[in-house]
Amino acid sequence: MAKCAFIGLGVMGYPMAGHLQKAGHDVTVYNRTSAKAEKWVSEFGGSSAPTPAEAAKGAEFVFSCVGNDDDLRSVMLGDGGMFAGMDKGSVLIDNTTASADVARELYAAAKDMGISFIDAPVSGGQAGAENGVLTVMCGGDQDAFDRAAPVIDAFAKSCKLMGESGSGQLTKMVNQICIAGLVQGLSEGVNFGVKAGLDMEKVLDVISKGAAGSWQMENRGSTMVENKFDFGFAVDWMRKDLGICLEESKRNGARLPVTALVDQFYAQVQERGGNRWDTSSLIDLLARG
Amino acid sequence: MAKCAFIGLGVMGYPMAGHLQKAGHDVTVYNRTSAKAEKWVSEFGGSSAPTPAEAAKGAEFVFSCVGNDDDLRSVMLGDGGMFAGMDKGSVLIDNTTASADVARELYAAAKDMGISFIDAPVSGGQAGAENGVLTVMCGGDQDAFDRAAPVIDAFAKSCKLMGESGSGQLTKMVNQICIAGLVQGLSEGVNFGVKAGLDMEKVLDVISKGAAGSWQMENRGSTMVENKFDFGFAVDWMRKDLGICLEESKRNGARLPVTALVDQFYAQVQERGGNRWDTSSLIDLLARG
Amino acid sequence: MAKCAFIGLGVMGYPMAGHLQKAGHDVTVYNRTSAKAEKWVSEFGGSSAPTPAEAAKGAEFVFSCVGNDDDLRSVMLGDGGMFAGMDKGSVLIDNTTASADVARELYAAAKDMGISFIDAPVSGGQAGAENGVLTVMCGGDQDAFDRAAPVIDAFAKSCKLMGESGSGQLTKMVNQICIAGLVQGLSEGVNFGVKAGLDMEKVLDVISKGAAGSWQMENRGSTMVENKFDFGFAVDWMRKDLGICLEESKRNGARLPVTALVDQFYAQVQERGGNRWDTSSLIDLLARG
Amino acid sequence: MAKCAFIGLGVMGYPMAGHLQKAGHDVTVYNRTSAKAEKWVSEFGGSSAPTPAEAAKGAEFVFSCVGNDDDLRSVMLGDGGMFAGMDKGSVLIDNTTASADVARELYAAAKDMGISFIDAPVSGGQAGAENGVLTVMCGGDQDAFDRAAPVIDAFAKSCKLMGESGSGQLTKMVNQICIAGLVQGLSEGVNFGVKAGLDMEKVLDVISKGAAGSWQMENRGSTMVENKFDFGFAVDWMRKDLGICLEESKRNGARLPVTALVDQFYAQVQERGGNRWDTSSLIDLLARG
Ligand SMILES: NC(=O)C1=CN([C@@H]2O[C@H](COP(=O)(O)OP(=O)(O)OC[C@H]3O[C@@H](n4cnc5c(N)ncnc54)[C@H](OP(=O)(O)O)[C@@H]3O)[C@@H](O)[C@H]2O)C=CC1
Ligand SMILES: NC(=O)C1=CN([C@@H]2O[C@H](COP(=O)(O)OP(=O)(O)OC[C@H]3O[C@@H](n4cnc5c(N)ncnc54)[C@H](OP(=O)(O)O)[C@@H]3O)[C@@H](O)[C@H]2O)C=CC1
Ligand SMILES: NC(=O)C1=CN([C@@H]2O[C@H](COP(=O)(O)OP(=O)(O)OC[C@H]3O[C@@H](n4cnc5c(N)ncnc54)[C@H](OP(=O)(O)O)[C@@H]3O)[C@@H](O)[C@H]2O)C=CC1
Repeated sequence: MAKCAFIGLGVMGYPMAGHLQKAGHDVTVYNRTSAKAEKWVSEFGGSSAPTPAEAAKGAEFVFSCVGNDDDLRSVMLGDGGMFAGMDKGSVLIDNTTASADVARELYAAAKDMGISFIDAPVSGGQAGAENGVLTVMCGGDQDAFDRAAPVIDAFAKSCKLMGESGSGQLTKMVNQICIAGLVQGLSEGVNFGVKAGLDMEKVLDVISKGAAGSWQMENRGSTMVENKFDFGFAVDWMRKDLGICLEESKRNGARLPVTALVDQFYAQVQERGGNRWDTSSLIDLLARG
Repeated sequence: MAKCAFIGLGVMGYPMAGHLQKAGHDVTVYNRTSAKAEKWVSEFGGSSAPTPAEAAKGAEFVFSCVGNDDDLRSVMLGDGGMFAGMDKGSVLIDNTTASADVARELYAAAKDMGISFIDAPVSGGQAGAENGVLTVMCGGDQDAFDRAAPVIDAFAKSCKLMGESGSGQLTKMVNQICIAGLVQGLSEGVNFGVKAGLDMEKVLDVISKGAAGSWQMENRGSTMVENKFDFGFAVDWMRKDLGICLEESKRNGARLPVTALVDQFYAQVQERGGNRWDTSSLIDLLARG
Repeated sequence: MAKCAFIGLGVMGYPMAGHLQKAGHDVTVYNRTSAKAEKWVSEFGGSSAPTPAEAAKGAEFVFSCVGNDDDLRSVMLGDGGMFAGMDKGSVLIDNTTASADVARELYAAAKDMGISFIDAPVSGGQAGAENGVLTVMCGGDQDAFDRAAPVIDAFAKSCKLMGESGSGQLTKMVNQICIAGLVQGLSEGVNFGVKAGLDMEKVLDVISKGAAGSWQMENRGSTMVENKFDFGFAVDWMRKDLGICLEESKRNGARLPVTALVDQFYAQVQERGGNRWDTSSLIDLLARG
Repeated sequence: MAKCAFIGLGVMGYPMAGHLQKAGHDVTVYNRTSAKAEKWVSEFGGSSAPTPAEAAKGAEFVFSCVGNDDDLRSVMLGDGGMFAGMDKGSVLIDNTTASADVARELYAAAKDMGISFIDAPVSGGQAGAENGVLTVMCGGDQDAFDRAAPVIDAFAKSCKLMGESGSGQLTKMVNQICIAGLVQGLSEGVNFGVKAGLDMEKVLDVISKGAAGSWQMENRGSTMVENKFDFGFAVDWMRKDLGICLEESKRNGARLPVTALVDQFYAQVQERGGNRWDTSSLIDLLARG
């Protein structure tokens, strides 16, 4: 069992850190809003620290799961940042969905200090985090991955090394791009069926096994028919992620016409107050003029 | 076992009629190009007739599977058409993907003649037809459906009555709409991954079980990476189907922004010579400028 | 001065027929709702008839300006239709915005009867019709055009033969396609400026002379800022016209990605009750979530 | 007559600085590639300096016209940068098309040093710069604008203060957004007309005065028909500008669906080698599959 630190106890980080502790690791947590760190310790044991640096001190594996690129830099760099506390030879596993650029930048900075940095964004949502069955997409060095993978397993159902530094983030981008167009298509299909007066439960049942089938159809089709979105993966996060994808696409030259368009549709969902709605809420733009 | 007729021995109709005969029914076929009818008889037995009317004569169940609305009217109506040959009390099962309008029009015309008309478009593609595992989406009257369903089962893995006349076609439209946006999203994701230099087999493997997963990703992801499209559901058929969806949407008021856009992208695939390519060929527009 | 007939006294036809009569021609009108025909006669003189056929009888030039393809066929063909009343050697000038197909179909039917058919859709709107300064885009035979042009001049500031039958309609399609994308771009620009807190009168004044300038910016910019749309060219007409363009594009292979998308946005304007709003109302979709 | 400096002698800056000198001002230029500065001095007189700081020394009005935000920061800040050389009370006029953010950032930095900063992007293109008839859109303080305007007039046909710092850039953004949708609509219209076999010179002549008319139609319509793009405003610049607009829209909440889509179409033009082609080259994507 290893000495670990976990920085960022949000919707995802809180249960992920919990799984590490429950798996027998010795976890020290840090959270900007300290009340959450205290709650975590009272629920799972382990301990908490007043800064990322102090949490990271002496840990073999240090995890982070914060909001975006800027958040990352602010918990990693500077006096009280993770890097300041970490030992040579330790491994930093970043579970934030962020840019490949920031991953490579932090990988290089870590390397200079003798630390291994793995970008390791996850998919599977809040439920996946709570049930410890996330998919973890890693980028970085093989040896660091080999050491970290058994620890990551505490909250993962699948954990793969996708390639060199940044590849975890790039894989997550592919994931998000696929979802944007898919959910818009699904929204148009479901809304069309509703407007056509079809019994949509029956329709979804019949078509979900075939060429139109998808995870989203099976897991969101019914709630879309009912215009229910108060759960799932928030539109605000989706827009942040699509922003990262669109930015990266300027560098690698991949065109994203429908993704760019759907990103603008998501902006309309936000305007309608849907910041925290599930990504399937695109259908709201079709259901209500 | 029933006396059946089958009109239209194309990629789909040929094996579908074959399954009926193999299931023990007594099938008479008609095909415009008679050579295909002769080949069918030599392969499956049964018999062929020189006109739809003569093929339909005396049959309890008459199937059709031709191209589009106009084709349908031309094999159904007029002197040598199916209606001219059919007996009162018989059931006409149309497996063509066509408009809900033509379905309702033919349903009414059939009713006047004491014939039951069921619109019964299918999904599952050429492979589904050959293996007799199509999904059949029906619209029409319950009693006619109840009589026809056991016969249809010869080539179906699932056969459901979706509602009144036209509902089969409307269900198929929902299916096609869902596919258009989904495949474009998938194309953008896969192409992005390729341009990012990721090992796409690994990526597809990791993400296909999660929220981005789909039948298309599992069954077309790898061939998309390799730019292979000489199989599957043809772009020409897809454009015909999306045309039907867009037309219907004017009536029911469902908006289809991305479907309309992707339909135009498919027009570009056609311009590149992709008329017979699989629908996953949308990625070609991204892979090659 | 010539003997004329005018079929269809709507927003456009009523003043157009008025200009013909005021120019000294002898005009007999027909309108489905006869009250409008009576009102017209009391305002302009001339006479009215109870059917298109009777209005057309003895006229050298017969004009029509109705809604769409179906309307056209219903006032032209059949017992009481225009064709039934027209003399050999007379000229039919159709000012309806309709398909090139129906133009060619009616041109051929007219030719068989010794009548010349000119498709002659107009632009310039209600104001252009009232002030007699429409732009008339003609398709048909040179000799018929040469005879008709001086008469058409009564309500035109420009009247050109664009080519063979159908070319007038095709030219009008080019016009409408250009407008759709332009107005959407303008909407996005104006709305952006409003959201950015700019003094939009000043902005429009500065940029309208340069590379972003357009008739729409000069004539609709200010009203768009104020969200005023109760005038101008109705969204319902625009959707009819874009439907014609999209249909024609299937034949000539011209791709219309943004036109197809904007057509769907117009469907949303309709859903918001904007059927009679000016085409510039696309901005409403951006101004209000 | 005033002592001036001009930093950045590119396609735009070179002739703009020339007009200042020709108007009687005393201009010192700086260009990174010094050969251009020497050529400029030999053509117009004035003098050149080895760094932006030295060029700016003693000048009452300092102009800059470089590429983008990063370029701006690099010529303004640091040891040899413009700020380092400028006197208290002098005015900095930046003609680069850049973000409103960088304008406000530099405005604030300048203010701290007692310098007035005016963001003053231009429109009118290379021809406008050469003929001294640019439109200049300014953001900043009234008094600084009042002092600078008569000097700017040397290369402007119109120069307006649009509002506080950043407003010049925001106005330019409105301009670029309007162009993107407009040019795509125009491309679809012109290409449709070509595919329909119309005589496009005639068509453009007829419709350019009406509701579809625009600067682009009048100035680019004919060259679009001929697929000629080796002139005008480069696609690379357009993408830079649209990137700025899309970035700003995240802050002000203005949605840009078609602008975002057209930006992706421009990426395809770049892929086809059109980096330096005029913005009207969008039609190439339609003309060639
Ligand atoms: N292919 C696929 O994967 C799928 C296809 N479909 C739908 O099934 C239908 C048939 O597709 P598919 O079998 O692939 O098409 P094919 O083109 O292979 O076959 C069309 C059949 O219809 C006949 N036909 C067409 N027009 C006429 C006419 N005017 N008069 C008489 N016969 C006519 C043809 O006769 P002839 O041999 O003389 O040309 C041929 O037998 C279509 O509606 C399609 O959209 C649905 C799901 C999957
Ligand atoms: N409004 C505008 O700004 C412009 C319109 N156009 C085009 O001009 C055409 C006419 O437009 P507008 O005048 O505004 O339309 P209106 O709706 O005002 O008028 C339509 C006219 O057509 C008649 N009509 C329609 N259907 C039939 C039918 N089946 N049988 C007999 N008469 C019929 C109507 O008769 P009734 O009075 O009995 O309803 C009415 O006289 C349209 O094609 C439109 O797209 C072109 C440019 C600008
Ligand atoms: N071209 C056009 O039609 C229009 C352009 N604009 C805008 O005007 C600006 C300039 O455009 P244009 O003149 O065409 O561009 P050019 O590429 O022709 O010129 C750019 C100029 O900036 C200098 N420069 C760029 N980066 C740096 C740097 N980091 N340090 C020092 N100097 C630098 C270049 O120096 P060097 O010579 O050494 O490369 C050159 O003098 C852009 O913002 C553009 O968007 C606006 C309207 C129209």
